[in-house]
Parts: sequence; C-alpha cells; structure tokens
Amino acid sequence: MLNFELNLPTKILFGRGSQRLIGEAVKPFAKKILLHYGGGSVKKNGIYDDVTRSLRESGVEFVELGGVAPNPRLSLVYEGIKLVKDENVELALAVGGGSVIDSAKAIAMGALYDGDVWDIYEKGVAVDKTLPVATVLTIPAAGSEASPSSVITNEKKKLKLGYTNEITRPVVSSVNPEHFFTLPKNQMANGVSDMMSHIFERYFTRTLNTDLTDALCEATLRVIMRNALILVENSENYEAWSEIGFCGTVAHNNSLGLGREQDWASHGMEHELSAIYDVAHGAGLAVVTPGWMRYVCDTDINSFVRFAVKVMGVDGDFRDPNAIASEGIKRLQEFYKKLGLPSTIMELGIDDKNLEIMAKKATRASFGEETPIGNFRKLRWLDVFAIYKSVFQ
Amino acid sequence: MLNFELNLPTKILFGRGSQRLIGEAVKPFAKKILLHYGGGSVKKNGIYDDVTRSLRESGVEFVELGGVAPNPRLSLVYEGIKLVKDENVELALAVGGGSVIDSAKAIAMGALYDGDVWDIYEKGVAVDKTLPVATVLTIPAAGSEASPSSVITNEKKKLKLGYTNEITRPVVSSVNPEHFFTLPKNQMANGVSDMMSHIFERYFTRTLNTDLTDALCEATLRVIMRNALILVENSENYEAWSEIGFCGTVAHNNSLGLGREQDWASHGMEHELSAIYDVAHGAGLAVVTPGWMRYVCDTDINSFVRFAVKVMGVDGDFRDPNAIASEGIKRLQEFYKKLGLPSTIMELGIDDKNLEIMAKKATRASFGEETPIGNFRKLRWLDVFAIYKSVFQ
Repeated sequence: MLNFELNLPTKILFGRGSQRLIGEAVKPFAKKILLHYGGGSVKKNGIYDDVTRSLRESGVEFVELGGVAPNPRLSLVYEGIKLVKDENVELALAVGGGSVIDSAKAIAMGALYDGDVWDIYEKGVAVDKTLPVATVLTIPAAGSEASPSSVITNEKKKLKLGYTNEITRPVVSSVNPEHFFTLPKNQMANGVSDMMSHIFERYFTRTLNTDLTDALCEATLRVIMRNALILVENSENYEAWSEIGFCGTVAHNNSLGLGREQDWASHGMEHELSAIYDVAHGAGLAVVTPGWMRYVCDTDINSFVRFAVKVMGVDGDFRDPNAIASEGIKRLQEFYKKLGLPSTIMELGIDDKNLEIMAKKATRASFGEETPIGNFRKLRWLDVFAIYKSVFQ
Repeated sequence: MLNFELNLPTKILFGRGSQRLIGEAVKPFAKKILLHYGGGSVKKNGIYDDVTRSLRESGVEFVELGGVAPNPRLSLVYEGIKLVKDENVELALAVGGGSVIDSAKAIAMGALYDGDVWDIYEKGVAVDKTLPVATVLTIPAAGSEASPSSVITNEKKKLKLGYTNEITRPVVSSVNPEHFFTLPKNQMANGVSDMMSHIFERYFTRTLNTDLTDALCEATLRVIMRNALILVENSENYEAWSEIGFCGTVAHNNSLGLGREQDWASHGMEHELSAIYDVAHGAGLAVVTPGWMRYVCDTDINSFVRFAVKVMGVDGDFRDPNAIASEGIKRLQEFYKKLGLPSTIMELGIDDKNLEIMAKKATRASFGEETPIGNFRKLRWLDVFAIYKSVFQ
C-alpha cells in the first residue's frame, strides 16, 4: 500500500426530499449564488421549483444560468464567470448531472482566477482558490458531486480535458434517488458504465498489498451490476436507484482508490471519442474498456483472474488463467449489452478516419512529445491506436 | 435504505512518516496546542520526539498532559480542561490510541462548555462548539481518529458513557502503520475485536435494501480477519498493519453504517464490564458479541446465514439455516481464540456477583425507567442478564 491522504469534505444529503435542504445547507457559504443547470428538464420535473423555494425560504439570493450541454463547453463557462463577477456571486450551485457540476466547478475556479480559465485545464495550473460549489444531483454517473475533478470541452479546439484539484470538491451535495426515476434508460446505462469505469481505473493497479481497497472495489462493482439490472426492468425502483446513486458517489470520491497507483487510460481514450464526436461518455467507456482489458491483461493476468472470479462470478479451471480472465471480460461486455450499451466504435456512429489522430491526441503525440497514458500498462499512441482498432467493429 | 447525511471531514495522513507532517497540519488551526498522551510509551518509541520536532519546526507551541489510562478517566479530563483554559490552548493533539483521543475530545469540548463536562456525557447535552482535535494514532482499534464519538469513565460513579457529536470528529489524523509494530499481541487482538464490533453494530440491522453498505461491511470484515492472522505470526508486517490500520478507521467513521438502523447493544453490554472491572474493551467485546449473536439470531436468521456465508466462509445445507448461522458464530469465536481473546466472562477475571447489576445499568433499569438497548432486537435487562449468563463460563 502506498502512503495516502484521505480527505472527503463534501457533505452528502442523501434520500427523499434532500433537495429541499439545499437552501439551509448553502446559506453559511453565501448570500447570493449562481443557480446553474442544463437544458431545462429540471423545470419540468419540479426540482427547479423545490430548489428555488428552498433558497428563498433560507433567504439566499440567486442568479440563473441554464443551458449546460453534455460534454460541457468552455463558451458557457466564460459566460458563467462573467455573470458571477458582475453579480458578486459567492457560490455556484449545480442542479444537474456531471456536466452541470463540472461546468459549475470551472466557473467557480475561473471567477477567482486572473487568467483564462482554459489555461487551468490545458496547462494544469495549480490554482489555490475557488468559490465553493454545491450540487443537487439529477443523474448518478460522473461522481462529480463529491469528486475533486471536472472535465471541460473546448469546442473550438476540439479538446476535452480533465482537471483535478482537491479545492474543487463540492461543499455539499443533495442526492435524492427519486430524481432518477425519469431518466431515459440510456442515461441510466451511461451512468452505470461511467461509475464502473471510475472503479476499474482504480482497481487495476500494479501496487501490491491493497487488500481493503481491492475488496471495496469488488463489493461496489457487484452492487452496481445487480441493481442496474433491476433498473432495466423497472426504472422507478427507489431502492435500486438508491444503491446506484450511492455507488456513483463512492466510485469517484476516491475512497476506493487510496494507497494505490491508478490507471485512467480508458478515460483518456474515451475523452478523445467524445471530444471529436460528442458521444456520451459512458457509452464510449463501454466500448473502450473491454478493448483496454483484452489489450493489457497479459501484463498481469492474475489481476484479471481475480476480477473475473470476484466481480463477474466466473468459475472454471484455474490452470488456464487466460480462459478465466477472458470469460470475465466477456461477461462484462454481456452486462453492458443487457443495459443497451454499444460495444464498438461503429455503434457509436464514428467512422475510422480519425482513429490515428485520436490515438496521437490521447498520448499528446500530436502536440510534440509523446506522453504514454495509463499505469497498469503504459500505453503509447500505437497501443491506443491498436485498442481503438480492436473495438472498431 | 434510510435517508442519511454523509460527512467525513477528518483529513487522514496515512503511511510511513506521516507523524512528521502533524505540525504543518495543525498549524492552520492553532498557535498553541495541548499535547496529550498516555503512559509514556510514546517517549520510548520515538513518536513523541517526531511529533514535538514537527511542532517546533512548524512554530506551533505546546503544553503537555500525559497519563491517560485505558478507559480514560474523568479526573484527568478535568485536569486537561483547566490546563487548556489556563494556557489559552487552541487545539488538542492526542498522541495515542482511542483512550487518549477520547480524553482529548472530552477536554476539547469541556474547554468551551460552561458547565461540568461530565453532564455532556451523562445527560447527552448537544454542545455546539469544541476546540479542534487532531491525532497521531498509535493503536488501531477504537476508530476515534475519525469518528464523532468518545467514551469517558467516571471512576467515582463507576460509569462508562459514550457520547456522539459530529463536531468532535478530529480535523486531522496521522496513521503510520510502523507505530503498531511494538504493540503487544493482546493489544492487537483487542483492537481487531473492537473494530470488528464497530462493523457488527452496523451490519446487523432490520433496515432493508442496504446492498452497498452490507457488501462494504463484509469486505472489510474479511480483510480484517485475514490480516489479523498474519499479525499473529509476524507483528512487524507493515502491509498487514496497513490494512488493519485503514480498516480500523473505516470501521468507525460511519461510511459502513450509512442509511441503516444500527444496533450497539454489544457495546452497551461491554461498557458495563469495563466500567466496573476495567477490562480491555476489545476483550470484553470478544466475550459478549458471540453471546449476543446466539441470543438474537432467531430474530432474523437470514441475516446470520448471510454473515456465516459471506464473512465466515460457511458452506452447507441451506435448508437448515440455523446450522449455517451457528457455524458462522462458532467460526467467529474460533477466530477470536486464534488471536488469544477470551470467550467467557470468567476468563476476563470477573465473578458472577454483579451480572444482574450490570444488566440493569446497561438498560438504565437501575436509574429508574428501563431503556431497552439495541435495535436488531430490543433488549431489556432480563435479556442482557441472560446474555451475560450465557457467556459467563
């Protein structure tokens, strides 16, 4: 186990009605806030009304900025920063899923940053101050409600870049599983794929002696899969959504990744797909993850045997570890199919003409010096290209 | 799943050398601190030197109060409160195990409380302010390094009472598994018993649909047992101590208890043993826990079947759930024995003349109105008495 620092400052208000507690929860941080949301579904389903009523009852003023799209864009972030500065806003409240929350994080940092907020993402600037962020989660997936990470798409440069900084963890997040009842099935599936990937990126490691986090990763993956299949049948099952919602937060607040080197190659490969083609992140991950697993599994086959046995319930002849490992990956792909997720790049509606460009962008080979991605195995652009091709059709 | 609030504000600095980071970590909170410790072992093993050097290098002044005994006493808490007030101390730094940390929590609350600090424990006063507490953990067991709880013994009244308040969670804790190498084997065993009990008190619940926390509890229990057996053989195994140290924190920071009704009857029953006889808490728990399990298991036999199968690895004929459940409890007791833990009250060196008195104190029947303890099954004094008798010899 590696040395680590555990720091989970986000207060989670979990359960029915928790969105109505948000006014009192943000009041200690701000007199006036930015209310940030997406395409307006929060106005149809009553969440907007609940939240604004809660804010009013707590005497918290707010200005609004809607319109966040999936793969949240830099242009709206700029607009948000201007609004926050003009209106002397003290906190950004995201009412939405990961895209809205990530947009709010970028606005909150950008509001206190002297330069161009995009530099923070592109150059990895270690900023040391931000406005506080709070969230009312409407899609369990990205884990951004308690994570120190955000991902912003620069639509002009066709770049989608992530940024991690502990100061960007939200101060408070409301998670009410009832809010997830009306999500279309593909959004549920994309969210499940995303949170599972957050665990895979931590689970597959070359660090030895990581018993507790190994076991917690496996336990959480099993719970996600079992409950996701319940939701395929019944999208209004409160208990199954509670598990999925809770797992989504745990999957990415880093409690499952402590003391171990993490991978993150699959996320890097997926970001290129959605940067150019605007595909759903979870769908892209369902495509690249099994490809990554097959490509890297001989680096440490026993890690994939363990995954197959403990997570995917594979039994068989352990004298043939490759067969056990392959069966595990196959079952994962079958699980994704049951959720209606794609398994090839073609199914994502992407042709093969940019595979090489994406592989070079993922490893920064196209920007000069190549930087291999991943830690379980270091992948150069030719490796990434091979993985893309292996899952192309 | 029940609604819950997740709040884990304690920053954990985990791993080799982390005690040397404590000066910088407490500096933002205080110019002058109380350095609180136990019987002086920290001076022999070098931890005291590391910590005081770190404080000096960070320019943090300190006054000292040593002498905390297991089952920490109210008299020393009073002394600490006086010292803190006289010296204008702004933070209490506990260097030790659960007893030292609990004593520091009581001092930190008492310093800002107008009345008698014992009232906070006896009357459950909801105090709303405390000095911050930090810790350098030397015994993994109580989980107090990240928990909102503390237990103080009023030696005059022979009362040992716990108190839980979110504001008492430490702000920062250092956990260096190397510090555990020199612990006597019985302290390792007592610690393991204590942290396992912290999970049992949460695991056995009547709340339905608690998939994730069930699975996390089971995963953590298995990791504790596997690594404790390594330490029986080799008390200087860094990796095994890392797992045990990490598990001890997770077991009691309540991340395993979210969204579920908890029990806490076994802790209540054990507190009476150590209040009167000053036995080690973990040893007492190893005695009363299997007794509690046997007494309550028919309340929901399936919970104990699950425990037997998933935690204790029992296989067998599921048409006889009682046999499966019994085998699970038997294996737990065998595990305790491998650690050298006692299995009867007599082995704790306690005679049978106070069993009834203790049962009545545990349920407050001796103070007037009886208050049943536990939630998995509500236990009245006659139930507690029956459990004590069942594990007496």
